[in-house]
Parts: sequence; C-alpha cells; structure tokens
Amino acid sequence: MKILILNGPNLNLLGVREPGIYGSCSFDSYLPLLRERYPAVDIEYRQSNIEGELINIMQETGFSYDGIILNAGAYTHTSIALHDCIRSLKCPVIEVHISNVHSREEFRRHSYISPVCKGVICGFGLDSYRLALEALLC
Amino acid sequence: MKILILNGPNLNLLGVREPGIYGSCSFDSYLPLLRERYPAVDIEYRQSNIEGELINIMQETGFSYDGIILNAGAYTHTSIALHDCIRSLKCPVIEVHISNVHSREEFRRHSYISPVCKGVICGFGLDSYRLALEALLC
Amino acid sequence: MKILILNGPNLNLLGVREPGIYGSCSFDSYLPLLRERYPAVDIEYRQSNIEGELINIMQETGFSYDGIILNAGAYTHTSIALHDCIRSLKCPVIEVHISNVHSREEFRRHSYISPVCKGVICGFGLDSYRLALEALLC
Amino acid sequence: MKILILNGPNLNLLGVREPGIYGSCSFDSYLPLLRERYPAVDIEYRQSNIEGELINIMQETGFSYDGIILNAGAYTHTSIALHDCIRSLKCPVIEVHISNVHSREEFRRHSYISPVCKGVICGFGLDSYRLALEALLC
Amino acid sequence: MKILILNGPNLNLLGVREPGIYGSCSFDSYLPLLRERYPAVDIEYRQSNIEGELINIMQETGFSYDGIILNAGAYTHTSIALHDCIRSLKCPVIEVHISNVHSREEFRRHSYISPVCKGVICGFGLDSYRLALEALLC
Amino acid sequence: MKILILNGPNLNLLGVREPGIYGSCSFDSYLPLLRERYPAVDIEYRQSNIEGELINIMQETGFSYDGIILNAGAYTHTSIALHDCIRSLKCPVIEVHISNVHSREEFRRHSYISPVCKGVICGFGLDSYRLALEALLC
Amino acid sequence: MKILILNGPNLNLLGVREPGIYGSCSFDSYLPLLRERYPAVDIEYRQSNIEGELINIMQETGFSYDGIILNAGAYTHTSIALHDCIRSLKCPVIEVHISNVHSREEFRRHSYISPVCKGVICGFGLDSYRLALEALLC
Amino acid sequence: MKILILNGPNLNLLGVREPGIYGSCSFDSYLPLLRERYPAVDIEYRQSNIEGELINIMQETGFSYDGIILNAGAYTHTSIALHDCIRSLKCPVIEVHISNVHSREEFRRHSYISPVCKGVICGFGLDSYRLALEALLC
Amino acid sequence: MKILILNGPNLNLLGVREPGIYGSCSFDSYLPLLRERYPAVDIEYRQSNIEGELINIMQETGFSYDGIILNAGAYTHTSIALHDCIRSLKCPVIEVHISNVHSREEFRRHSYISPVCKGVICGFGLDSYRLALEALLC
Amino acid sequence: MKILILNGPNLNLLGVREPGIYGSCSFDSYLPLLRERYPAVDIEYRQSNIEGELINIMQETGFSYDGIILNAGAYTHTSIALHDCIRSLKCPVIEVHISNVHSREEFRRHSYISPVCKGVICGFGLDSYRLALEALLC
Amino acid sequence: MKILILNGPNLNLLGVREPGIYGSCSFDSYLPLLRERYPAVDIEYRQSNIEGELINIMQETGFSYDGIILNAGAYTHTSIALHDCIRSLKCPVIEVHISNVHSREEFRRHSYISPVCKGVICGFGLDSYRLALEALLC
Amino acid sequence: MKILILNGPNLNLLGVREPGIYGSCSFDSYLPLLRERYPAVDIEYRQSNIEGELINIMQETGFSYDGIILNAGAYTHTSIALHDCIRSLKCPVIEVHISNVHSREEFRRHSYISPVCKGVICGFGLDSYRLALEALLC
Repeated sequence: MKILILNGPNLNLLGVREPGIYGSCSFDSYLPLLRERYPAVDIEYRQSNIEGELINIMQETGFSYDGIILNAGAYTHTSIALHDCIRSLKCPVIEVHISNVHSREEFRRHSYISPVCKGVICGFGLDSYRLALEALLC
Repeated sequence: MKILILNGPNLNLLGVREPGIYGSCSFDSYLPLLRERYPAVDIEYRQSNIEGELINIMQETGFSYDGIILNAGAYTHTSIALHDCIRSLKCPVIEVHISNVHSREEFRRHSYISPVCKGVICGFGLDSYRLALEALLC
Repeated sequence: MKILILNGPNLNLLGVREPGIYGSCSFDSYLPLLRERYPAVDIEYRQSNIEGELINIMQETGFSYDGIILNAGAYTHTSIALHDCIRSLKCPVIEVHISNVHSREEFRRHSYISPVCKGVICGFGLDSYRLALEALLC
Repeated sequence: MKILILNGPNLNLLGVREPGIYGSCSFDSYLPLLRERYPAVDIEYRQSNIEGELINIMQETGFSYDGIILNAGAYTHTSIALHDCIRSLKCPVIEVHISNVHSREEFRRHSYISPVCKGVICGFGLDSYRLALEALLC
Repeated sequence: MKILILNGPNLNLLGVREPGIYGSCSFDSYLPLLRERYPAVDIEYRQSNIEGELINIMQETGFSYDGIILNAGAYTHTSIALHDCIRSLKCPVIEVHISNVHSREEFRRHSYISPVCKGVICGFGLDSYRLALEALLC
Repeated sequence: MKILILNGPNLNLLGVREPGIYGSCSFDSYLPLLRERYPAVDIEYRQSNIEGELINIMQETGFSYDGIILNAGAYTHTSIALHDCIRSLKCPVIEVHISNVHSREEFRRHSYISPVCKGVICGFGLDSYRLALEALLC
Repeated sequence: MKILILNGPNLNLLGVREPGIYGSCSFDSYLPLLRERYPAVDIEYRQSNIEGELINIMQETGFSYDGIILNAGAYTHTSIALHDCIRSLKCPVIEVHISNVHSREEFRRHSYISPVCKGVICGFGLDSYRLALEALLC
Repeated sequence: MKILILNGPNLNLLGVREPGIYGSCSFDSYLPLLRERYPAVDIEYRQSNIEGELINIMQETGFSYDGIILNAGAYTHTSIALHDCIRSLKCPVIEVHISNVHSREEFRRHSYISPVCKGVICGFGLDSYRLALEALLC
Repeated sequence: MKILILNGPNLNLLGVREPGIYGSCSFDSYLPLLRERYPAVDIEYRQSNIEGELINIMQETGFSYDGIILNAGAYTHTSIALHDCIRSLKCPVIEVHISNVHSREEFRRHSYISPVCKGVICGFGLDSYRLALEALLC
Repeated sequence: MKILILNGPNLNLLGVREPGIYGSCSFDSYLPLLRERYPAVDIEYRQSNIEGELINIMQETGFSYDGIILNAGAYTHTSIALHDCIRSLKCPVIEVHISNVHSREEFRRHSYISPVCKGVICGFGLDSYRLALEALLC
Repeated sequence: MKILILNGPNLNLLGVREPGIYGSCSFDSYLPLLRERYPAVDIEYRQSNIEGELINIMQETGFSYDGIILNAGAYTHTSIALHDCIRSLKCPVIEVHISNVHSREEFRRHSYISPVCKGVICGFGLDSYRLALEALLC
Repeated sequence: MKILILNGPNLNLLGVREPGIYGSCSFDSYLPLLRERYPAVDIEYRQSNIEGELINIMQETGFSYDGIILNAGAYTHTSIALHDCIRSLKCPVIEVHISNVHSREEFRRHSYISPVCKGVICGFGLDSYRLALEALLC
C-alpha cells in the first residue's frame, strides 16, 4: 500500500512555528515513528509552500497511489484550484489539520477542499496524520 | 478506561434512514464489533432525540468518564446549549459524523460544537466512531 | 386510511394564545368536527412542546401511517432535526400553519422543513388542517 | 360564486415544460375536470406571460369576483408590482404553486406576494388549484 | 414647454387603492387642477401597468419633450430596464412618489432609477407632481 | 405575590461551570438568601435543560403567577418557541443573564426573547435575579 | 409663517467645497434671493458642524415654528440621534439635499432621517430648498 | 438552419444610446452584414422592451428553430421568468452582451439566465452576435 | 458614595417626547424621588445632546466617582467613541434604557457600549435608573 | 499575428479530468486542429498550475503579442494578482472557459479577471478557444 | 512650513487610557520631542472629543496650512462628516493611528476617511506621528 | 542592521504598470537612492510573482534579519498563507503599499496580513518604503 502525506504552506516550520498551537515536534522527527508503526505501508512525504506545486504533486501521485493525506494549511481556506485537483484524482484524499481549526479565527472555519475529500480529521495534533492513515487502511 | 458514545436525533434510525448517505448498518449491530476490537475500553452507548436529554446525559458522565464521542446529528448545527454543556465538562469530547457533512447542504457546514470539542472526525461512515476512540486512546 | 395530525410548541394554547392571530377555537373543539366530516379517515392527534418528542412521535408513525399533517410551530424555523426526521420517513408529511407566516416577522418566513415535506398550506386558520387532509386523500 | 384562476409566465407550457417538475397534464385538460367537480362555482381562467397584464386582469376582476387563485410563476419571486396590486383589491387572493418551490433553487423560496395573499398552497401538483378553491369555499 | 407625466403600475387605482397611504383623490381629478395652475406648460399624461410599455412611452417622448415626471410605482425598486432607458434619453427625468417610501417596507427604500434621474421628490401626496413641475421650470 | 424563577440549560451547573464567567456560587445556595431578603414574595424555582419543558413550565405558571424571571441560557439565542410562549402568557416575563452576554461571543448578542419580555437585565452576576425581582415589585 | 432652514456639517463651505458637486454659490448669497421670492415667510437660517447642536436647534424651534427644512449633510447617513429628535418634534421636517445623493457613493443612499421626515427632495441644487418651502406652503 | 436573434429592452436604441458603451452602429445596419456573411443561415430578428413578450417570442420559436441568440438587456439581471422560459425550450439559447457587463455596475454581474443558456459571450461589441452564430454553427 | 447619571440625546425631552414609548414623566420630576429614596448616595445628573460632551463629562467623573449610570440614547447604537471612553475609565458604567429597545426597530438592537459596560438594564421605564443604582450599591 | 493560449491549473488534465464537464479530448490533440484552421496565426501554448507562473508568462508575452486567450481555471475566481497583471499588459486578454461556469457551484460565478479582460466566452467546450481567436481576429 | 496635528476623541487620555494598547506616554510629553527634532516645522496641536469641532478646526486650517496629521480616533470608523470635510480641504491630510487597528476588533478595520486622505500610517505607537511628518516633508 | 524589502506580484512592472496609479519610476532606479540615504542599513531586495516563493523568502530571512518591509501586492487581499508565515517569524514585518489602497476598488480594502504585521504604511508612492525603514530604525 502506497500513501502520500502532503503538507502545505508553513508546515515545514512545524516545531518552530507557534508551538502553543502546533506543538514543538517537527514533522521530520514524527515521520519515522509513523513509518515504524505502520511498516506495511509505503509512506511518501512531500511539502511545498507553493499552491501550484501541491497540485503538481497530487497530479503525479493521485492516479497511482492508494491515498493522499493532505494538510493544505492556509490554502485549505482559499484554494479552489486544490478543490478542482482533488476532484480530478482517482485515489481518496483525506483532509487533516493539526490544530482544531474551528476554535481559531472565523476565516479558518471554511474549507474549499472538504466537500471533495473523503473525510476530515482535525484537532489531534500530529496524531491527526495517524488517524487519517487508519482511515485509509480501514 | 470508560467512554461514552452519545448519538443525537434520528441516529436511532441508522440502517433504515437514507442508506445512500448513512449506510445500511444499524448502530446496534456495529457496537458489539467495536467493543470486541477494544476490549480494554468500557464503552457505554446512549441515544436521544431530545436536545436537553443529550445535555442531561453529558452532565451525568462528563465529570467522571474519560471521554465522550458525540454525534450530535442535526443539533450540531443549531445548538448553542450543547456548546455550553461541552465547555462545562471535565472530559474531552470528540465530534464525529458518519457522512462528510461538508459535501451536503450548506447549513450542515457550520457546527456550534466544533470550537469546544477536542477535535472533529467526519466522513468515514461508522468507522468515524472507531477513529475517535483511537484518538481518545492516544 | 390512518393519518396523524401533529402539533408542535404552544399549539396546545390554541383558543387562548393571541386570538387575533390564531383564532379563538381550541384544537380540541375543532378535532371532532374534522373527524365527523371525514368518517373514513382514522385521525390520530398528538401535541408536544418538545422538539425531540415530535421526532419520537413521527418515527413511531411515519413508517406505518398513510400521512402526517405537521404544524411544527416555531420549530419550523429552527429545527434541522425535524428536517432530518421527515427525510427518513416513508409516509408523506404536509406542513401546515394556521396563520399566514409570511405576513408576520421576517424570521417566520424561512422553514427548514418545507423542502422535505410533500407540500405546504398556510394562512387558512384551522381550515389549513382540513385542506391538508384533502391533499392526502387526493 | 365567481372565481378567477390566473396563471403567470410559462404556465401556458404546462404538460410540455419540464414534466419531471410540473407533470405532463396541460391546464386546458385539467380545467374541465375542476369545473365538473365544482359545478356551483363560476370559474374563469386567464393566463399571461406579461407581468403588467396580470395586474390588468386582477384589477378588472378583483373588485367584483369572490376570489382569485393566482399562480404567478416566476413573478412570485420578483414582482413588487403584483404585491401592490393584490393589496389594492377587495377580494381574497390565494397563492398556489404546482411544485414545492422550497425544494428547488434558493431564489424560489422568497415570495413577494405571500404577505398580501390570504394564504399559500404549494407542492400538490395541479391539485393545488382545487385545494385553493376549497379554501375559498370554506 | 412640453412635459410628460408618466405613472406606473397600480397608479390607475389612485383614490381607490389604500387611501390611508395614497389619499382619496384620483389622478384624473388632480390633473385638470395642475394644468390650470401651469397654463404655459403642455402636460401630457400616460399610465401603464406594463414595465416595457413605460419604456416604450419614454423612448417616444424622451428625445423631444422638455422633461418627464415619472412615478414608476413598484418598478422603481426592481427595474434595471427603466434605469437603462432613462440613461439613454436626452431630456431630464424626475422621480416622484406620492407616499414617503422610506417610512414603509424596507424593500421600498432602494430605487434603481434614482441614480439616473435628475432628482427625487417623495412624500408630499399628489403635490409631489407639482413640485417636480416646479423643478423642471426652474 | 407569586413569582417563578426559571433557569434554562446548563444553569444547574452554576458554581461548577466556568467559574470565571458564572461565579462559584450555586443557585441552590443563592436562593435561600433571596427568599430571606424578600419574605413577602413567594418564589418558586425550576430548572430544565429541555427547551420544551421550559415551555411546559411557563404555560403552567404564566396565567396565574405575578411574574416570571427567566434565564433561558443558550436557548435565549436560538428559540423562537420560547418567544412564542412568552407572547402567549398573561404575566410579565423578565429576561436575566448572569454574565454580560454582550462582551462574549457574537452569537450571544442576539436574543429571540428580548422583544417579548418586559425588560432585560444582564451582567450583574447572581444579583441580576434580585434586580429582576425588584423590577417586578415596582 | 415661520420656517427654519438648518444646514449640517460642511455646508458652510458651499461655493468653496467641491463645486462640481455642490455648485459655486454660497448659501449666504442664495438666502436673500429666497427671502425676496417668499416675502410672507419668515425664514430663519442656522448651520452647525456639530450633530448635537443640530439637535439643540431643532428642539428649540420644532415646537413653535411651522416647519423645518433640514439638510443634515453627512449626518443624514449616520445619525439615529437626529432621527429620534425629528420624531419628537411637533412641526414637519423636510429632508433636502443639493446633489442627487443616489448617484454618488453607496453609503450616501441610506438615510436614517427619511422615515421620520414628511418628505424628501434631492438633486436640484440650491433650488431643492425652494421646492421644500413650496411643499411647506402647500 | 433557422436562427432567432432576440434583443431585449432599450436595444432598439442601439447607435443612439450611450455610444461610449454600445457603439454608434444601429442593429438595423448591422443585420444585413451578418446575413451576408452567413448566407446559409436563415436569421430572424425580433426586439421587444416587454419582458413577457420576449417570453412569448421564445415560446413561439424555441421548439422549431435551431437556436436563439438572446441579448436580454437589463432583464438578464432581474428575470427569473426568462430563466424558466429558456429551461422549457428545446433549442439551445446563447446569451450575448455587446459591452463587457463585468466592467460596469455590480448589479450587471449577475445573470439569471446564464445557468440555463448553452454559453455566454460578452464584450465584443456587435461582433458578440457573430461569435454566437459561429458557436451555434459549430 | 458618588454616582453620575448621564443622559444622552433627546432625553431632555422626556415627558414631552413620544409618551407612548417613554412615559409622561420628565427626568426633572423623577430625580428628587430617586434622591429621596437613596439619601446615602450623592447623585449628580447631567444631560447633553452632543456625543463629544458626553465623553467630556465621563472623562471628568470616571476616575473619581463610584459609578456612572448611562443612558446614551441613540448614540448607544452608533458611537464607538463612547465605547472607547468607557473602556478608559476606572469606575463601572451601567447601560440603561427606558424602553425595551429590543421590541423596537432592528437598528436599536445593537449597542456599541454594552460590551464595555458592567451590565445592561432596559425596559422598565424610569425605574431602570433605580435598578442600575441598586446594582451599583450591591 | 502572434497569439498566446494560456491554460491555468488542472487544465493539463483535460480529457482525463471529469469528462462529463470538460469533455474527453486533451488540449494537445485539440491544438493542431486549431493551428490548421488558422494557419496565418502564430499560436503559442503554455500551461501552468502555479498562479505566479501564469503571471510570469503573461508579463513575458503581454507587451509584444497581439492577444492572449486565458483560461485561468480556478484562479479565475480567487486571483486579484491575475487581475492586476492583465491591467498592466498592452495586448487584449480574452477570458475563456470550457464549461458554462454559471451552471455549476455558486463560487464559480464570480470572476476577478472579467472586468479587466476585453471579453468573456464560456460554455462551448474546446470551441470556446476558437471563438476567442475569432474575436481577436475581428 | 506649518502643520496641524489633530487628535480626536479620548486621545487626551493618552498615557492613562489602556496603556497596554496605547503606551504610557502622554501626547503632551511627546510633542516637545517632536518639535525639537523638526525645528523647521511649525507644529500646531489640537484635540477635541467632539466630531463637529474636529471639522471646525480642519476648516480653519485646511486652506492655509501645509498639511494635517489626523488621528480621528473612533470617529475614523463612523464619520462620513469627516470624510466630507477632508475632501473639501486644499491641504493634504494623513491618517495616523497609534495602535495597529487591524489587529483589534473587526469594527476598527473600516475607515471612512482613508479614501480621501493622502495616505495612512498605523501601528507604530507615537512614532506614527513622526512618520506622517516625514511623509509631509518628502 | 539587515533589512529585507520584499515585493510581490506585478511589482516588477513598476514604472511600466499603470503609471497613473504607481508612478513612472522602477524599483531598480529607486533602490540605490534608498541605500545611499541609509548607508548604515544593509538592504536586501527580492521580488516574486509566486505566493509560495514569497513565503520561502520570508522563512529564509525572518529568523535572522532585523525586519522585513513587505509589499505583498494583490496577495495582500487573498493570502492566509502569508498571514500564517508572518506570524511564524521572529522579526517584525511592515506592510507597505505605493498607492492608497483605500481609494481604489472595495476588494483592496481588506488585508489578510495587516493584523500580523507590526504596522501599515500606504499611499506615499515609493516613499512608503523609506517611511517603513524609518519605522524599523526607530
């Protein structure tokens, strides 16, 4: 089973960026633990701050992988282009967020990508990624 | 570990109600499977169609249990009273939905309870409940 | 033919409550006249001020009766839970109102249940119930 | 008793126009059945696609007839001029719709004429006209 | 000097229609008095309930007359077509209303035609027409 | 003089629930003090988390008592049914809130019941109830 | 007959301020012409840039004069206090504007005072004041 | 091939009306050029200022012609009746505008008819009609 | 104990202004009664129609008095400057209204000052001031 | 004559992506046909999923080419940066869409780039590009 | 060079008022430092809590001074009268704010005066005034 | 002291793009003058049309430089991703604009980045950059 975890803008700063909201663990230290726990899953990891590159990456993988776990960061709330991309893919996409976006600013409560994702998981810190993986394995 | 699964209005009709959206499995047939998979967890299950009874039940359990998995159904979108109740409790509450509420009517996209829940999981069918349990166990 | 007439909040005060709007006849004095006029129809009558009890009652009857005539009172404008319930039933539901809700406050002009009812009849006083019965008999 | 049934724009296409929504029976084949069922009522029928002609017709009849059954079609949602006309008349006007306008596009949910009509009946196919007649006879 | 007074929908009912708002004097009895007071002005009077006919009339007169006094009635609030017509004319158009439209329903407070008229006069009963005439004479 | 104090959802948790907002005194310890201060007033106290039960209680008392002091909690902001109930009663109802609802979330600033209550008192902690009593005694 | 003409903020700059919109004639040179044309009318003129002083002036005159011609300038669009003041007076108030406020910025299209004035006249340059005087004399 | 070009309100003034926006060529001088360029197409041309007459004309032609090129003028933005009419027809309708409606007033940016037309062409002056013809020929 | 009662615009007309809403008693006749009832409280009274003078008065007293009872009249709904002033003071400010502002026009339902006042009391006629005094004494 | 056809996000998936909406023909197979039909036109073709790269490309060509045919895909609805870019160019830009964007989701009905493009063509499948070319040649 | 610094409501409390937001330095201690740094500039300083007095002051200076630095405080967000005044002046006006108004309440994000000022500077504490002076000197 | 000046989309066209709004001086000719005036400051200059590259650049510099002067161009109004990035940095960011964005289109009046920047400077042409530098030096 082949899965892509795709992180959007500013998520390369995890561990550095606003630890009160996002925690103090970087994604690079989290990823090996996740791979260890799910040895049967081939987990690829990509990150980009550029909206169009997220689209490029999803177009490359979304017709052959078994699933995409997408944390689109701020583009979640503004990108119809990501919405269109997800609709075009063959594999399921799961939307995840580290923080509970609903308990923050009003503009974080609307997601352009939720309606075209299989499901949404938010608020569980980095564990949100694992739960998404569980959901794909189900 | 003691957990309450609390279902709101019309979820007693699961398996009967709009199977295209909610699936054809009743919660009563799902619950034993869940308990079997997590034998170490004491799972209590309650359902009510009455908003105030959901509050009564959460007030009874929310100060002594280890977590509540709440599918508030339609009250998700209209109930400030549930919002207030969840804020008052000591244990974490996880909001779940069987369907992906974001791909349905516009009025299902706003949740009064999300901001006061620990996290939100939606769109994975009955497996949403298991993922919430996983999140509580983490 | 078996029909349920279901009245929502404050409609037990008919005849007492704001007679300028709702008239001075109670539902208890109206019901025998209606039964007399349609002797072939088995008319059951229920009333509750509790939103969730209206759901309970509709769930009990909506899979075996031939139709429900529902005056949901103020819950008409606020209850997505009733909307969900009506969608789940097998028998047709007709929304009725005694007063012309459109000539009153702005917040009475939106109904959450209209889109899932078979039809709507409002503004004809207690005769709205009879017209709904006519519509079910058609 | 003298009654006018007045149909607005595109209702001359009944039976031809979107049968999935409006049915496959034309108004011309329905009218004789209605007259037959209510022989004591003198039913006049008029149709126009022009907003101002609907006003002309209502001004001619609304001071001498016993009631008007108005299906204003799309003008229901846009015409303050019809609203003003109905307010000026002496006889009651009943708003009818063949389809349940509330289960269609959002812009069909607001009616400019409802507040000045005696009542509203919608969703019962052509039977909506008969129910309106019943309401006038009451 | 040649002036057109043009009345829109339902204004042919002046004197009959809601006398509490519009007064009990018909336009036909008012017009001779106005002509008598301004003998040097050639006053033509037209009325139509049809939006497009109001446009026809204004197109016929608006390139040769010295001014148009327009009470567009309810079309004031809904007609972009009248707005476009007035913009296209050569002579000034003055918007008048008999009642003070701002003290009535909210939907009467917006006028599509005000921005393209020379000025607006409202609230002075039938005297609004005379004031508009005064304004044109100035 | 006979007065009902009626508390809505989650107010049974007073003293436990968010003490920073609602204080640390339960209503049960406050009530005797109030009765002691106003010995000539017969004060009945009721609480329910269920919207429809609040209506039931007000219908039972609102035609014979001299006044109702209502803290409808979260239903203040969502319940048209309570609005309708208060309109139907004979005795005055005073809306009270412990906290200053206007300095909290935006959704707490709109009250469906204010327009039909005699007056509103909010922001004085439990003393809001006493002030309401003073207002009724006046 | 005693009339007050009251000008609000920035109208003391007439003739200086944006001549393209307001013309190049000051009110001080216009006033004698107006008084000359209506010798039987006792015209008092006041101006203030301060909202509350406009209220003071209207309270002083509004119970004894025969009418007030008010150009409230920018306070037209923001002042509920002027609205309240006009409601309290005994004499009629006519709202005037030099420019056609409807053909300018959107925020100039709403007037808080129109609903409580007898009528509104706008767009005729300084002649708007004379027309208002005519309306009061009628 | 038989095509109807149908122009709405004020388009009979083309060449006269606001040449800066609509150009200085009348439709009558344009039409022969168009017919000359597409000799194989039978082009009928109609214009009306009356909304309902546009509906009449489309009903007469929309079941037998091969296509309609509709410039509904201002009715584009206000007419649900035209929307309903177009939905009822058998032949494709193409919406055209001479000016780029999106670079003008905000109220010209919404079209009620776009969703039910085959496509939209705007901003190319009279050439918009030719492009629509090209589209129908394709 | 030293208290300021501060009245805003048009409240100097109490007893004269719209008695149906504000009662027929002037504040000058009410004040001695209030002072008599609370002899231990030093009550100063001020009124101004000018927004900025209300600020001046509050700045003079708000650092030395024990409380301010403020009926800001219409400025309640429009003045951010009053909001800022109240935030800057040391003593508590209580917002009062004579009428129940929530049962009047929609624009009276929003208060800019409520969030920065200690509490709000409205709807009890002149007794609202006494209740505010009670609240300060508590 | 030198023309750029520029496609935005996800349009590289044409033929693969949602064929029900976008058709089953890729742009690569369409382009030769277009070039063949217009041999006198030098057509360059570019595509990018990255908003800023679309700007880069337009800046490179927009001062020397004779026109740009732009299908900005989802960026149409969200990109003020593209709006600014188009305003800065010397050559005309024509907005095209394959599908009729007005008959899809509400958020596709607003375009940030329409007001600064020469014109808009949508709904004709790939033929929209040819019609745009026709418009540039005119 | 002659410059006016004009402060609006509550800015006389600088140093006292909410030091967390506005700092602990009064304007009176800041002003000498500013004058010392720019000895060639004649800086006049005025403050008023009254909207109309700010207009009076600007009218007195705005035709002869070289610039106005205006901190209109809360009137920034509510005063169309200030907007009109600034438009009428001959000298440039620069809008300044001590705090970053955009990181505070939503209602502080809209300024009526920004569109008619030369520029805006906010968020730099008292240094905002110096930067505005720099801008005028440029 | 090390400062980054970062320009967003289309600002590479300065001097070419709409000179009436942005002036006729390119940033490349302006930069040497600025460096000359502030020799003690190490000014780096970067520009990109790509939103995500602006983020990349700010992430590279925002933890080691002393300040960033950001003109985000059109992304100012649409980019939550830039908002998130700025929040994550250690050094202050100042938002600048060449033109007065408040006197242009409505959609330019909202900035997603203002609330997380230290301050905002707009409307002073290229001098806005110098003023921002002054602010950082303060």
